[in-house]
Amino acid sequence: MANARATKLFDEFAELIRDFITRNRIDRDDYAAVMNYVISVGEAGEWPLWLDAFFESTVDTVDYGTGDWTSSTIEGPYFKEGAPLLTERPAVLPMRPDEPGDPMRFLGTVRDTTGAPVTDAVIDVWHSTNDGSYSFFSPALPEEYLMRGKVPTADDGRFEFRSIRPVPYEIPKDGPTGVLMNSVLGRHSWRPAHLHFRVESPTHRTLITQLYFQGDPYLDSDSCSGVKDELVLPVSDKSADGERWKQAEYTFVLQPN
Amino acid sequence: MANARATKLFDEFAELIRDFITRNRIDRDDYAAVMNYVISVGEAGEWPLWLDAFFESTVDTVDYGTGDWTSSTIEGPYFKEGAPLLTERPAVLPMRPDEPGDPMRFLGTVRDTTGAPVTDAVIDVWHSTNDGSYSFFSPALPEEYLMRGKVPTADDGRFEFRSIRPVPYEIPKDGPTGVLMNSVLGRHSWRPAHLHFRVESPTHRTLITQLYFQGDPYLDSDSCSGVKDELVLPVSDKSADGERWKQAEYTFVLQPN
Repeated sequence: MANARATKLFDEFAELIRDFITRNRIDRDDYAAVMNYVISVGEAGEWPLWLDAFFESTVDTVDYGTGDWTSSTIEGPYFKEGAPLLTERPAVLPMRPDEPGDPMRFLGTVRDTTGAPVTDAVIDVWHSTNDGSYSFFSPALPEEYLMRGKVPTADDGRFEFRSIRPVPYEIPKDGPTGVLMNSVLGRHSWRPAHLHFRVESPTHRTLITQLYFQGDPYLDSDSCSGVKDELVLPVSDKSADGERWKQAEYTFVLQPN
Repeated sequence: MANARATKLFDEFAELIRDFITRNRIDRDDYAAVMNYVISVGEAGEWPLWLDAFFESTVDTVDYGTGDWTSSTIEGPYFKEGAPLLTERPAVLPMRPDEPGDPMRFLGTVRDTTGAPVTDAVIDVWHSTNDGSYSFFSPALPEEYLMRGKVPTADDGRFEFRSIRPVPYEIPKDGPTGVLMNSVLGRHSWRPAHLHFRVESPTHRTLITQLYFQGDPYLDSDSCSGVKDELVLPVSDKSADGERWKQAEYTFVLQPN
C-alpha cells in the first residue's frame, strides 16, 4: 500500500529537481560529477555529517518550533546514547587525567514557560575534546563516554557541571563534505565552540540545542548553520583558592508537551 | 579556488531543499527516515540506478536538446565500454548457444539532418537477455559481451544486426530503488522492452537513445521515464526458408557537431 504523504513529497521533490536540472542546464558531465560525488559521500560514511551540515538546522526549526522557550538547534552526528547519569553535585563530566583544555564550570537552570523550575529534567550534555574530537567518533580516543554525561536538575531546577571549555574545530575536511565546503564552495569547515544539549523532562518536549560563546570567530560563518543569537553566551574568567576556570550560565526554558 | 558555477548551483539547490523542508513541515522523524534511506541506497550500490531512474531523462533532454534529429533518451546504468566491433554484415550480437528469446533482425540507417547517409557511424547497441539481465551486471551471466556489440554503417549509411527481441523487465525491486517505487509510491518497477544505442560519428554529436516497441504494456508507465513517442517502433513477424523472426527498422538522424 502506497504511503500517500511520502508519494506527495517524493513527487514534489522530483519535480523540483527536474525543474532545477532544466533551468540550470545540468548536462551529462554535471550529472556524472554529481553521481560520483553522491557515491563518494556514502563510501566515506559521511551522509549524517553531510545532511546535518546543510539541512538539519532547517528540519530542527520546523520540528521544535519557536516560541517563548529556548531555541533548538542541530543535534549533529555525534550524539551517543547511554551517557552516565552524574548524580554528584556539581557533576564532573568524565575526562582523562590531565585532560587538555581550560577548566569550565557551567551553571544552569531549567524552567518552564511560566517561570517555574523544572525539577524532573535531565540534561544530556556532550562536547568535543580540546582538539575537536568526540568520543566514540574518533579512533584516537578511548571508547568511553568522555565529555558526555547526564546531569539531573535539583529541586530548584538548577544543575551544574564541570568540564573543559570547548574550542572551535573543523568538521572532517578530507572527506566529500569538507571538499565541498572548502574546495568547491570556497568556504571553510569550522564550527564555533559549542556545548551540545538534549534536555529531557517527562512533562516537556525534549529540547535539542547547542550553546556558543561570545567572541568566537566563527559565530557568523558556522559551517553547519547551527548558531542562533539567543544561544550565544558570555564566558567569564573566575578564580578562587588558587584555581582558575571559565564560567558560563544559562537558563533553559522548555516547551510544554 | 571555489568553483563559481558549482557554488551558485549548490546554494540554489540547498535553498530549494530548505524551502521544501519548511513548506512541507519535514520533522526530525521524516529526516531520520530520509537519512536512513539515503544511506541504504549507497550501501546497495544503487545510486546509478536510483539517479538514472528518476532524473537522467531530464538531464538527457537538456544535454542533447531537441530538433530535427532523433530524440535522445536515458543511457541507464548498464552500458559497458569495449563491446566488440562486429564487421560482418549482417552483424550478429554475441549470444550463448540456444540463447532464449525470439530472434530479431534490426535494419537501421544513419543519416544527417540534410538526409545524407552517415557512413562513418558506429552503433554501439546493448540490451537485456530474455529474463531482463545485462551481461557484466548479472552474476548469472558469463562475464562476456553478451547482447552487446558495435556495428559500423556501410557506405549507404545502413547497418543490420541480429539478436533476440528484448522483453519488458523489472529493474531490481528488492533494493531501495524498487522499494521506493513499489512499496512507498505504490507504482511498479517495470520498463518496457527496449534496445539501447550509442551512435557515434566523428562528424556528429554522440546520440544516446533507446528504441521501444508498439503494443508494450509499459510504454505509458515506464519506471524510468525513458519513453518518447517518436522512439516507439512497430515490430513485424517475418519468415523465410523455414526461419521466423521479428523485424524492426529505424532511421537515426544525428545532430551535427
